[in-house]
Amino acid sequence: MALTDPDRLFPVESRLRDLARSLYDSVKGLPILSPHGHCDPRWFADNARFPNPAELFVIPDHYVFRMLVSQGVPLTDLGVPRTDGGTTESDPRTIWRRFAENFHLFRGTPSSLWLNHSFEHVFGLTEPLTAATADAYYDHIEGKLAEDAFRPRALFESFGIEALATTEGALDDLKWHRMMRESGWQGRVITTYRPDSVVDPEFEGFIQNLADFGALTGEDTATWEGYLAAHRTRRAFFKEHGATASDHGHPTARTENLSQADAAALFDIVRRGEATPDQADAFRGQMLTEMARMSLADGLTLQIHAGSWRNHSAPVFARHGRDKGFDIPMRTDWVAALKPMLDAVGMEPDLTIILFTLDETTYGRELAPLAGAYPALKLGPPWWFFDSYEGIKRFREATTETCGFYNTAGFNDDTRAFCSIPARHDVARRSDCAYLATLVGTGRLRESEAFEVAHDLTYRLAKEAYGL
Amino acid sequence: MALTDPDRLFPVESRLRDLARSLYDSVKGLPILSPHGHCDPRWFADNARFPNPAELFVIPDHYVFRMLVSQGVPLTDLGVPRTDGGTTESDPRTIWRRFAENFHLFRGTPSSLWLNHSFEHVFGLTEPLTAATADAYYDHIEGKLAEDAFRPRALFESFGIEALATTEGALDDLKWHRMMRESGWQGRVITTYRPDSVVDPEFEGFIQNLADFGALTGEDTATWEGYLAAHRTRRAFFKEHGATASDHGHPTARTENLSQADAAALFDIVRRGEATPDQADAFRGQMLTEMARMSLADGLTLQIHAGSWRNHSAPVFARHGRDKGFDIPMRTDWVAALKPMLDAVGMEPDLTIILFTLDETTYGRELAPLAGAYPALKLGPPWWFFDSYEGIKRFREATTETCGFYNTAGFNDDTRAFCSIPARHDVARRSDCAYLATLVGTGRLRESEAFEVAHDLTYRLAKEAYGL
Amino acid sequence: MALTDPDRLFPVESRLRDLARSLYDSVKGLPILSPHGHCDPRWFADNARFPNPAELFVIPDHYVFRMLVSQGVPLTDLGVPRTDGGTTESDPRTIWRRFAENFHLFRGTPSSLWLNHSFEHVFGLTEPLTAATADAYYDHIEGKLAEDAFRPRALFESFGIEALATTEGALDDLKWHRMMRESGWQGRVITTYRPDSVVDPEFEGFIQNLADFGALTGEDTATWEGYLAAHRTRRAFFKEHGATASDHGHPTARTENLSQADAAALFDIVRRGEATPDQADAFRGQMLTEMARMSLADGLTLQIHAGSWRNHSAPVFARHGRDKGFDIPMRTDWVAALKPMLDAVGMEPDLTIILFTLDETTYGRELAPLAGAYPALKLGPPWWFFDSYEGIKRFREATTETCGFYNTAGFNDDTRAFCSIPARHDVARRSDCAYLATLVGTGRLRESEAFEVAHDLTYRLAKEAYGL
Repeated sequence: MALTDPDRLFPVESRLRDLARSLYDSVKGLPILSPHGHCDPRWFADNARFPNPAELFVIPDHYVFRMLVSQGVPLTDLGVPRTDGGTTESDPRTIWRRFAENFHLFRGTPSSLWLNHSFEHVFGLTEPLTAATADAYYDHIEGKLAEDAFRPRALFESFGIEALATTEGALDDLKWHRMMRESGWQGRVITTYRPDSVVDPEFEGFIQNLADFGALTGEDTATWEGYLAAHRTRRAFFKEHGATASDHGHPTARTENLSQADAAALFDIVRRGEATPDQADAFRGQMLTEMARMSLADGLTLQIHAGSWRNHSAPVFARHGRDKGFDIPMRTDWVAALKPMLDAVGMEPDLTIILFTLDETTYGRELAPLAGAYPALKLGPPWWFFDSYEGIKRFREATTETCGFYNTAGFNDDTRAFCSIPARHDVARRSDCAYLATLVGTGRLRESEAFEVAHDLTYRLAKEAYGL
Repeated sequence: MALTDPDRLFPVESRLRDLARSLYDSVKGLPILSPHGHCDPRWFADNARFPNPAELFVIPDHYVFRMLVSQGVPLTDLGVPRTDGGTTESDPRTIWRRFAENFHLFRGTPSSLWLNHSFEHVFGLTEPLTAATADAYYDHIEGKLAEDAFRPRALFESFGIEALATTEGALDDLKWHRMMRESGWQGRVITTYRPDSVVDPEFEGFIQNLADFGALTGEDTATWEGYLAAHRTRRAFFKEHGATASDHGHPTARTENLSQADAAALFDIVRRGEATPDQADAFRGQMLTEMARMSLADGLTLQIHAGSWRNHSAPVFARHGRDKGFDIPMRTDWVAALKPMLDAVGMEPDLTIILFTLDETTYGRELAPLAGAYPALKLGPPWWFFDSYEGIKRFREATTETCGFYNTAGFNDDTRAFCSIPARHDVARRSDCAYLATLVGTGRLRESEAFEVAHDLTYRLAKEAYGL
Repeated sequence: MALTDPDRLFPVESRLRDLARSLYDSVKGLPILSPHGHCDPRWFADNARFPNPAELFVIPDHYVFRMLVSQGVPLTDLGVPRTDGGTTESDPRTIWRRFAENFHLFRGTPSSLWLNHSFEHVFGLTEPLTAATADAYYDHIEGKLAEDAFRPRALFESFGIEALATTEGALDDLKWHRMMRESGWQGRVITTYRPDSVVDPEFEGFIQNLADFGALTGEDTATWEGYLAAHRTRRAFFKEHGATASDHGHPTARTENLSQADAAALFDIVRRGEATPDQADAFRGQMLTEMARMSLADGLTLQIHAGSWRNHSAPVFARHGRDKGFDIPMRTDWVAALKPMLDAVGMEPDLTIILFTLDETTYGRELAPLAGAYPALKLGPPWWFFDSYEGIKRFREATTETCGFYNTAGFNDDTRAFCSIPARHDVARRSDCAYLATLVGTGRLRESEAFEVAHDLTYRLAKEAYGL
């Protein structure tokens, strides 16, 4: 008995299935490029064992605990920490049992595919997880986690990861990355420059962050020029720690292209904490254009993740803080929003700006037409809720006809759940091969082309888009 | 010859088709739960025969007559009453012939599936309806309607309906429901509390309705407290007549969570007929939160149907009034709109709020992420234009990966066309089984799970979401 | 070896494929009706040979050159003219080679289907186009273009075109159409009245255009009445040159239904060049209603193409002007926007207004519900980026269930790439037959109905909607 079907996600019709399988067989062994994600670099610096099954699979994974919460399980019952430091469930086995007895909630979701993939292919489990098998699962995984082969570096290697990018804030000292490098370990774990805390006037502690930013770089971040210089300094520092990209998580995709005088005046308002919400949005927008200009100079790829309403539930945010499964997508405009930046740098052939949306309606209407025209633009893979079989299918069907394959940027797993990395790449590879097989079977692509495209989508496009 | 294909709506590939058929066979005989709809309770109170085929299938069904209107057939030619009481076609056979000769207009629509299902499975007809068969159809149906087995209660029973909810306004005396109960008939026909006429400041006669609301309940509806008390009184009265839910048809999904002082001040503006459109919308929004609070106390499920532009054509509304096929969906925001209510009551595990949208773009972007996080939220089935094979397919594909099956609320037929009830449930059961078979065939669900989910989608989820 | 699969775009499952092929066989030989497009009437007036492969396939086709631009190839390297008259690549063979070596960029796009169809079925080529075959292709096509059988009129006839509509501005003298008619050639090439340059206050040279409009018609276009009379005069002139329709390309779908006094006052602002952007939009909207009223009188079909952000890139527009692949779709509202016009003329059974959108989210939410109610409305086929297999599939799946087939208007190729006409109609016929076969295979349509609908979608609906 197996938890996963070897032909999962392939088309059902036999001719298509055979072709999809052949395509998949040609790419399944390729190394994993993970150019955007949220793994903790400390794992690979310390190489300490993962503490227990609940801390590996449940407590840190908002994909998992949100689903249980949606059915009435309190976050505290799942061990999710409280901002006031109050009591939460502390027994990992109890948490694991709650997870196991609710595992049916994940039916039909990518989480179920990813988790079953990890259970079977990482931990060698073959019985379905249920209330009845909860303890056996727990003991088995617990036993494995004690083995050296299940420490972070060993898993990194057995997963076949060629490069893994983590994401650190502009004020991070990157000590874990330094420690990793100094340890002599050969695994390629690189950082990404994510300056939201010093770019977003609405970020907690923004004023203090600016001061710290100045202290860290020796620049006068009370002036616009000094502030930009501080970014240049930090970008160079992040590049030394492997960064090939910056990343920007903004509520909207707004960009601006103000004169330097106007930008300086806006910065002056912002740095005094006097920005209106509209001015805050304009400042974030101006900074995307500034970052794009810096990218022209230093070669970092620019990633824009726009359109998430963070921490939608006020009571959950008050009790538990950020990233607790209550980030909700919003309708997002890209056409008007990107125009200022694109008028400034959109025709630059050596610039790479990768766009990520949570508004699927923009795939065909806005993003593919933009990426199918502007040399600087590439489309990132389906993000977050849409990193799934159906999500990938809709993405390909809505974008390929307008911008082709070569204006897309390969796959991102974007995860903080380490064990899900091979599972997520596997789903993406299978989904893309299913799509390609369908194109061949309906006379829209030659079979020889499909093999080439499968390789490109799995490996080459990510490598090139991120300069890996 | 048959009008309906026994394998209709199943996948075509033989392995999937066999599995879909098995899944369907396991649920096709389950009782019908119809927790939201617009049947006339008088049918079951009086149990009088339906007058003729035109009044059964054409004149009251806006799904049907709108299609003929769209091709230039005047509403008056179809017997649809005029607001000025003027002449309309009064010969049911003439109306029936017009319907029959235009029946090809329904090709590819769910109406065609529903009508053919009724013709074949309720009335035993097997030849297609055309101009040539119009009279034979008319005579056959007319003959059947004269039989006792075709009276409302007999049909109710032969349809296998376990519970049917009608929808009545807050000022309704529920006399038909009382009559039904007093008659000793065992059929379970329950009411639903739909207070739009006393909640929506833009409803015709709102000021008078408030006065009537006070008179009916003995509360002082000139005060905010009295007005809320009147709702509590009526909700209790509706509960006595079986209600397990309230229902709210609003142009937007806006909610508010004002202080009671601010709410009372707003009510004061509203009750004097002085509300601006924005204040009217705010008041409706505040009342959704108030209704949710009352639901916490009395256990009624709260249904929100948002986003229809009612009576879009001014001349049609002037000549024929409401519900004449000219209600058009609007773009609808849920993320910002629901936040005030969700901050107030969204984390309550014992509250059930069911959301219905006419904006399919919100399925994956807004509704599934919300329902996949907040315990109080469930997603209603595809509504109105989207209650169809493709509509159900899109709904499942767009929501399941994010919120699973267990944050949805089973099926609603939401119809005023009585004979379409078994047909609509049949389409939903088949469509869901087709989807489940596809999940199994592509390795996303185990076969044993699919049978369990099929049962849940057909029966258990509706029963639980509506407390039936 | 062939470039195109004879079963392309048909479903893969064998029973569906056989039926789709039978349906396609029944319509593939029907004449082409091309009621909306942008071919140059001079081709058929002069009947001169096409100059070379690059000028036939690359330089004028924004579908083609935008894709190369998106990957960093400068427009000047592709021979696209500069507005300053500066140098661009002038060697057609060099341009052709650049196209050929980038042909893989079109994988999975309709351009690849169209181009391969033209290469194989118009020019008899069977090897894939690559850098290696570029010169052989060039020489072969160049040789063919020198033959009389490849002159415009001969191709028109061999393509089986029954009627082809071009599109001319209100100030056009229609001399090519006159020349064609006077030449005695029997091919039916008709014009279409496209008055944007005298209707849109934001059009380049609008004030001068109004003066020319007056001079051309002998009407006093400084007055509202004279301006309307000028339109009537030109519409009659266009009708004499075959026009059966007008066409309106507006940024939004806004309509207005002002009193004639208010319209005259707005016109007075507009003609003095004093309109705000909102007034300009209102004026365009009023003119849609005026045009609809004129259509009631003269019988021209009214086409509305709304929602394109023209010339999105400021630098590309400055360097190369209009229509350079940088037109990007925008979110478009139809429900509120069309209400004024529909209240005025929407219930007219003898009026035909055809709607075209670039916002697919409006198919099911807005357009199908509107077209399924208002007699005056028909839905145009998927437009521009959505004229593709997946685009047609989404259109049918999203609209048919609500408005059926008979509120749609058949196919448009809307192209300026002459050789793509048979290819585009072929894709549409195949895509529709694939959809119909799926309906039959899933019990939603009888086989005999499918054959009738296939014919309607291919021929009858376009003929009737455009009065051809």
